[in-house]
Amino acid sequence: MYLRCLRELQKEGRETISSRDLANRFHLSSVQIRKDLAQFGEFGIRGVGYAIAPLAQRLHELLGLNHKHRLVVVGMGNLGCALAAYAGFNDDSFEVVAGFDVDPRKVGSRRGNLVVRHIEEIDRVVRETSADIGVLAAPASSALACYEVLIATGISAILNFAPVPLPDRPEVRLKNVDLRVHLEEASFLIRAG
Amino acid sequence: MYLRCLRELQKEGRETISSRDLANRFHLSSVQIRKDLAQFGEFGIRGVGYAIAPLAQRLHELLGLNHKHRLVVVGMGNLGCALAAYAGFNDDSFEVVAGFDVDPRKVGSRRGNLVVRHIEEIDRVVRETSADIGVLAAPASSALACYEVLIATGISAILNFAPVPLPDRPEVRLKNVDLRVHLEEASFLIRAG
Repeated sequence: MYLRCLRELQKEGRETISSRDLANRFHLSSVQIRKDLAQFGEFGIRGVGYAIAPLAQRLHELLGLNHKHRLVVVGMGNLGCALAAYAGFNDDSFEVVAGFDVDPRKVGSRRGNLVVRHIEEIDRVVRETSADIGVLAAPASSALACYEVLIATGISAILNFAPVPLPDRPEVRLKNVDLRVHLEEASFLIRAG
Repeated sequence: MYLRCLRELQKEGRETISSRDLANRFHLSSVQIRKDLAQFGEFGIRGVGYAIAPLAQRLHELLGLNHKHRLVVVGMGNLGCALAAYAGFNDDSFEVVAGFDVDPRKVGSRRGNLVVRHIEEIDRVVRETSADIGVLAAPASSALACYEVLIATGISAILNFAPVPLPDRPEVRLKNVDLRVHLEEASFLIRAG
């Protein structure tokens, strides 16, 4: 979230920002901001605030965004196809290298820049492409099976967009994504007027 | 986020939780938790912690989830179709009532439970269904135009999944969604080991 705020400020051409301005602008507590950002090094300049560019660069590195991650998508339905083509999943830090499915009507067909491959090929493709993140977009009914298949490839992290939370496993870093949170925020905005 | 935590605890059959346990479990500061939750009323019981069910109920109400929101999706490409069919967008609190596009190959066709309608019908449909949230899933090139169309319907809030941030407008509550944040978290999990 801090990185996102800092990028926004960089776009506006700002070079420094005080913790108080940061707090006002992004509805955070300035005490919390100072505490959080102090963990990353000495980016505060007394009486001036934070130097935006070096702090953003440090957070970028901390998030592991300074080298390219290769992604494989499992489940090439509407959501999987949308994620495979999503601009934010294909830039300097991320690249979708393959999409997998079991449906014979999909396997071999082109979806955006990818030709859908059969899930049986996933071990070889992950090895050959050095993919390190699996994006799980299978239906609820097959999510757990796809999770096991992804874990077996030895992939480092899995981002689960399937509509069921998956259990943590020691072999892999798992992040369950629930898109409903965004909708709940919209609902809150209406209530807050 | 608190509501999500509390729901998880409810699923496990817990009835109370201390701010310290809440802090340990969800990697938050217990001071921050007490401060945040104090805003919502008196849910802490000295020496015991928080009564989970009434606190969850209060947060549910605060988020405006105690009555049903009706959603229209604009842009029925892969992402729009996936969101229209997403389980978390169709439950006690939310219901997708219509999907719109301009592509003659899509208009009139069935996608999941919906028949795609032409965007020209949107004013009437929003009025007739009392839809209050617009889900924008158009491509970058037409996102701004679709935003204007949605605003003109008088809808209360817009959740923007298009790959460009849209500007705030006084007539509507806007929430820009960037799915890349989830991927950045996965990247961080890899780095954090």
